Amino acid sequence: MRLSRYFLPVLKETPSEAQIVSHRLMLRAGMIKQASAGIYSWLPLGFKVLRNIERIVHGEQARAGHIPMLMPTLQSADLWRESGRYDAYGPEMLRIRDRQDRDMLYGPTNEEMITDIFRSHVGSYKDLPLTLYHIQWKFRDEMRPRFGVMRGREFLMKDGYNFDLTKADALHAYNRHLVSYLRTYERMGLQAIPMRADSGPIGGDDTHEFLVLAETGESEVFYDAEITELKFGDREIDYDSVEQCQAVLEEFTSRYARTDETHDAEMFAKIPEDRQRVARGIEVGQIFYFGTKYSEAMGATVSDGEGNKVPVHMGSHGIGVSRLVGAIIEASHDDKGIIWPEGVTPFHCGIVNLKQGDAEADAACDALYSSLTALGLDPLYDDRNERAGGKFATMDLIGLPWRITVGPRGLKNGVVELTSRRTGESEEMPPEEAVQRISQIYSANA
Amino acid sequence: MRLSRYFLPVLKETPSEAQIVSHRLMLRAGMIKQASAGIYSWLPLGFKVLRNIERIVHGEQARAGHIPMLMPTLQSADLWRESGRYDAYGPEMLRIRDRQDRDMLYGPTNEEMITDIFRSHVGSYKDLPLTLYHIQWKFRDEMRPRFGVMRGREFLMKDGYNFDLTKADALHAYNRHLVSYLRTYERMGLQAIPMRADSGPIGGDDTHEFLVLAETGESEVFYDAEITELKFGDREIDYDSVEQCQAVLEEFTSRYARTDETHDAEMFAKIPEDRQRVARGIEVGQIFYFGTKYSEAMGATVSDGEGNKVPVHMGSHGIGVSRLVGAIIEASHDDKGIIWPEGVTPFHCGIVNLKQGDAEADAACDALYSSLTALGLDPLYDDRNERAGGKFATMDLIGLPWRITVGPRGLKNGVVELTSRRTGESEEMPPEEAVQRISQIYSANA
Repeated sequence: MRLSRYFLPVLKETPSEAQIVSHRLMLRAGMIKQASAGIYSWLPLGFKVLRNIERIVHGEQARAGHIPMLMPTLQSADLWRESGRYDAYGPEMLRIRDRQDRDMLYGPTNEEMITDIFRSHVGSYKDLPLTLYHIQWKFRDEMRPRFGVMRGREFLMKDGYNFDLTKADALHAYNRHLVSYLRTYERMGLQAIPMRADSGPIGGDDTHEFLVLAETGESEVFYDAEITELKFGDREIDYDSVEQCQAVLEEFTSRYARTDETHDAEMFAKIPEDRQRVARGIEVGQIFYFGTKYSEAMGATVSDGEGNKVPVHMGSHGIGVSRLVGAIIEASHDDKGIIWPEGVTPFHCGIVNLKQGDAEADAACDALYSSLTALGLDPLYDDRNERAGGKFATMDLIGLPWRITVGPRGLKNGVVELTSRRTGESEEMPPEEAVQRISQIYSANA
Repeated sequence: MRLSRYFLPVLKETPSEAQIVSHRLMLRAGMIKQASAGIYSWLPLGFKVLRNIERIVHGEQARAGHIPMLMPTLQSADLWRESGRYDAYGPEMLRIRDRQDRDMLYGPTNEEMITDIFRSHVGSYKDLPLTLYHIQWKFRDEMRPRFGVMRGREFLMKDGYNFDLTKADALHAYNRHLVSYLRTYERMGLQAIPMRADSGPIGGDDTHEFLVLAETGESEVFYDAEITELKFGDREIDYDSVEQCQAVLEEFTSRYARTDETHDAEMFAKIPEDRQRVARGIEVGQIFYFGTKYSEAMGATVSDGEGNKVPVHMGSHGIGVSRLVGAIIEASHDDKGIIWPEGVTPFHCGIVNLKQGDAEADAACDALYSSLTALGLDPLYDDRNERAGGKFATMDLIGLPWRITVGPRGLKNGVVELTSRRTGESEEMPPEEAVQRISQIYSANA
């Protein structure tokens, strides 16, 4: 993309309404614009990051064998009356009346609807196991929406639901989700720690939240420092293997890690003192096993092959897709702006032309742009007629991980400059080599 | 995807509530499930088609230089009060009150919101031309939702908005959209005819609807038979060229083609009688030029470089993404089921194993599956333990354009059968050749 043809409304001033760094940077980098309280438009740069996160989520869900679909945003109140949650949910549920005076609501989650789909179409244990998921906008009418997309009212979530014949099968689905979530967050450049959690209005006994450590996190967290050394990495896993998934769960929950909601001071005290950590975290996902809570209430049963109709065991599993954009920035920025991990960056690299209008510099930039796009890469070429300082500041603010700087002086020696946003280090090299290097970085990250 | 692990709840009976063939077939093929009146869940097969349509729309928008973003579903009533449409819109607008008693609405379209974004960030003619678009769920509270996704209440639409300094520039944007829409529909296997239309509540003088001919269409259409011979095909076009885009508009609007709303019996009568056609059509898109209607009302001005602040010229341009799923089926089916055009098919081909459990047949199917997926293709392998007749009926119903049939008898001679869903013709060939043929078909369609 050529910046002269793009829509990137960066702000010079820091918006006063933004209390946390991700909100400030998202506004300054022209990623979002508030439409009303807690409701945002995703401007082009922000939308690209959102789509990249969706892409990673879809990719890892497919790997785990989960099946994508899409449920609508508006739901009928009747379904929620069946589960008893219509009255229980409280004022965060946005209740709507349509022109026929039917009670509707903007879905804050989809347990009822997916259970209804299941009971309408599935009747036999032979169709199990089954995990369906979607990525859809949700609404929670927060009293005090704040922190930008981190605590918005209209937010994008991946929510998945497993249906299994037995509790053991459902716990395998739970473990499978834990594994796939670890992979998902790592591909976004995040370390998200599974912590034992409270189930809240979803219900159920088994639940883990995934928390990203960040000073601005809304939760206080307590953990054993050893847990931050665990990486899923690029190990291969067979998602059908109960043993392999169970082993990952055990490994990643073997160290103490809890939020204030479930914190146990006595257990925490038993950790060697030099490993005790108290910090803050941002919740970016949660997995639940809740057994037959919804299937019993709503009559979602299957024949078990022995002549009985039994309610299915279920769980639900969520990833906060829009919230992750903020969480990644909270975890990865400096005083100049955002630093995108390669997995989610809106453009693979920036090209800065130090002397727009100089025939040689323009030609070199055009050639770089063509070579990169021919390799399937997506560069942002700052072809505006602006000072170098302003171009660098914009690139630093929007946080592309790599920048190629092209100027007449370097070109005389046949070189351009490749700069890492993270380290700030620059290296001179021929343009073809810069293209090669960037291509290698992203193939390693694919 | 192996069918044994998929969620494809096909129905044996024809659902009685469905009045038109696309609705019946979408229900029978397990593509959708009604959630409430006019609101649907997209089951996995339907969701795949929806995503394919989105992918084509995004691809063609990128080619035309239009920039993707995403606006929220809920909007503040205040914005609509500025344009005067809050009171004018009528009962199809779903009005909502949040917990703070603020008036909100579920967006039926986004002229106000995009104009607000524009006026907040753009102040100079130098930032023009600019075309922003999004693909987002909309809501229109239809009194009588019907025909499945063809006339739903919650529906997915691509809507794009151009901002230009002059009327001439905005008319170029209009023409650019017309060209890109012709390409978009053809890639979906559709012929959509641009017809002069009424502007309705959007406003403006220049507007064309795109109509797909189908017996079940809601509009009566009148046209010169010659127009159906026009194809955009694979011609190259420079979207920046005013002349080239204008020439396409002239070519595709050179023959009489109107809906009943704008029909002119006198003009129609002048067409040679053997070319006069009266038929029915489904509207799948519409483009508008409406000048300064919103920019004046909402103060969206730019400096024109000569010291004046002038309101920008705008247009809006929509494609009915979810409706297209139904429209494609209306245009492409037979008495056995759907016939997907290659561009939007949910799976590239089906693999039918005539004797599941036979070691050789299973191995041949597995090998086919691996070869196809290694080439980036997405086959649906019916690995269920069912009769051949049932497997064929399912494949015919869900409409994959190509089927590979594998059985012990053919394998003895080293062949499988490749069948075209459209023609019904089958050909025997070695498995490798079938893979090659399918790969070639889809590279030609990429």
